[in-house]
Amino acid sequence: MHSPSFTLVAPGRELAAALQHKIDTKTKPLGALGRLEHLALQLGLIQNSLTPQLHKPHVLVCAGDHGAARAGISAFPQDVTWQMVENFLAGGAAINVLARQAGLALVVADAGVAHDFGVRPNLLDTKVASGTSNYLEGAAMSAEQCAQAMQHGVDVVAGLAAQGCNVLGFGEMGIGNTASASLLTHCLTGLPLADVVGRGTGLDDAGVTRKRAMLQKALDIWTERRSDPLAVLARFGGFEIAMLAGAMLAAAERRMTLLIDGFIVTSALLVAAKIAPAILDYCVFAHCSEESGHRLQLQHLQATPLLNLGLRLGEGTGAALAYPLLAAACAFLNEMASFDSAGVSEKSA
Amino acid sequence: MHSPSFTLVAPGRELAAALQHKIDTKTKPLGALGRLEHLALQLGLIQNSLTPQLHKPHVLVCAGDHGAARAGISAFPQDVTWQMVENFLAGGAAINVLARQAGLALVVADAGVAHDFGVRPNLLDTKVASGTSNYLEGAAMSAEQCAQAMQHGVDVVAGLAAQGCNVLGFGEMGIGNTASASLLTHCLTGLPLADVVGRGTGLDDAGVTRKRAMLQKALDIWTERRSDPLAVLARFGGFEIAMLAGAMLAAAERRMTLLIDGFIVTSALLVAAKIAPAILDYCVFAHCSEESGHRLQLQHLQATPLLNLGLRLGEGTGAALAYPLLAAACAFLNEMASFDSAGVSEKSA
Repeated sequence: MHSPSFTLVAPGRELAAALQHKIDTKTKPLGALGRLEHLALQLGLIQNSLTPQLHKPHVLVCAGDHGAARAGISAFPQDVTWQMVENFLAGGAAINVLARQAGLALVVADAGVAHDFGVRPNLLDTKVASGTSNYLEGAAMSAEQCAQAMQHGVDVVAGLAAQGCNVLGFGEMGIGNTASASLLTHCLTGLPLADVVGRGTGLDDAGVTRKRAMLQKALDIWTERRSDPLAVLARFGGFEIAMLAGAMLAAAERRMTLLIDGFIVTSALLVAAKIAPAILDYCVFAHCSEESGHRLQLQHLQATPLLNLGLRLGEGTGAALAYPLLAAACAFLNEMASFDSAGVSEKSA
Repeated sequence: MHSPSFTLVAPGRELAAALQHKIDTKTKPLGALGRLEHLALQLGLIQNSLTPQLHKPHVLVCAGDHGAARAGISAFPQDVTWQMVENFLAGGAAINVLARQAGLALVVADAGVAHDFGVRPNLLDTKVASGTSNYLEGAAMSAEQCAQAMQHGVDVVAGLAAQGCNVLGFGEMGIGNTASASLLTHCLTGLPLADVVGRGTGLDDAGVTRKRAMLQKALDIWTERRSDPLAVLARFGGFEIAMLAGAMLAAAERRMTLLIDGFIVTSALLVAAKIAPAILDYCVFAHCSEESGHRLQLQHLQATPLLNLGLRLGEGTGAALAYPLLAAACAFLNEMASFDSAGVSEKSA
């Protein structure tokens, strides 16, 4: 199987001036809605419309297990991955609550959890394998497996697009996946490994030191190290990260607006952006995570997140919390009166 | 007329440990919901409940005119105050759109606009006078007028409480009211005047310099200067600011949760907090405004705002944008599963 290919172009800027004029003539001082005005402009450009609309917003949570997790890189046992997927299916996790609160439909996909869920009506069976192989010993996945996981992401997005969805948040679950994200981030950005390895779900200082040493070893044994994003993804990635990268590329190709969550989701975006840099124009960066490394990823991407609430949960929770801001930006653009229409005097010259 | 009096005590902390335990046993790493966890704890303490609820959320927008505005301290003509009130009544202003989006009911009060609106079904007639007097020449209002405006705030909150409202955002409209807020902030915090005078709705550098000089003159001519909050409020305040201060005190007295907006609303809170410091425990600080001086007010109050989006619009727009975060905090506390209930393994010891 080959990796899916993408035809992805940046949004045109034909409407930029007209959108800015529409924003500037709303009944408010110039620029007074701050970041919301940038969001409104971005949304208009993505949809190439002066009246963009958010349709059928979803958050896609991909779950996968990591062969390396058994080596002790996480504070939680690996079983938590499938237990948390069960929690998603039962509606009790943070992302269930926050997605419901924000009006986002939740899609949960088993990208490669080391557990047999059986047939479940609200779980997408996109399992590539029961967890990746241990990158401390070799590649986490084969090129074929990597391509398959990405294709699953593409397929899910095609289904959502068919339902009319044009805005998609991304989330993940996978014990050990901050370690994968650290390796991907180091390889794809050149940031020092130590700077992008953090506490994950709650390692103490000794745990972080051990995690750093293990990840350095994982890098050291990959002697034929290559910088191309698919090679890095297959070597260190999780199935959930590969699926997310495929889903992101497909979503941008379909001119959806992408809501980017935290450290792990951003590592998937780093892969996607290496493949198609234009994807960044479709991205809204939801928040800055407490996980050390996320701030550096955002700086690398020259991205300014909407929220800074000290979150470090994953699951797409930051994306769900930021969605109302995107909806507010869309609403003010469409629903606010202009100085003319409201009969309000403008600023003195 | 005497100023209304308030019996306002800080929330008890009897449930603090039980609330923290409930938060800590949710299916997430410890502390992983960051600021949302603090909000959930605060809400539980305010309502003295392990299952706090947000009922009938409202935003109260008080409008008033300022005698000093005619002297040129604003970039917009004074007529914009009543024109914007008409915009509120017609549903076309930013706060209409953002309150609707967030599920907040909007209450607009004429605290003292220099315009005859006639009888209007969706405008509260709480007019004290047609604008304040010019504080460049004397007191903006008499002690009686100040007390009357505050009492109007108390009365509005009583009406909202009777409807079951337990969470209230605050907003304002009044050409020239950033100047009032600057004077109040300087007098009540001791911050240098120059540091708390900003661009308002869009003054250029020369305009800011002129505004600073005028406000210094307003201070200089008040030779019997007193530090008590009601004297400062009557000297420099707007009717909308006095009404907000009264409404805030009444809302906290009724154990509502208060959503504090930007620079002008925070100046009303500075008055209220001088009268009853315990009010701060009921406050959620929605955002940090671009208006210079708001950040300093927040620092003075040791308050950390939820959002930092470069807003400088007023009207309660920041409060409306932050409300979904408060609702999300309430929802996770009530709706998320615990490790026990979901059968998820906890962190390794």
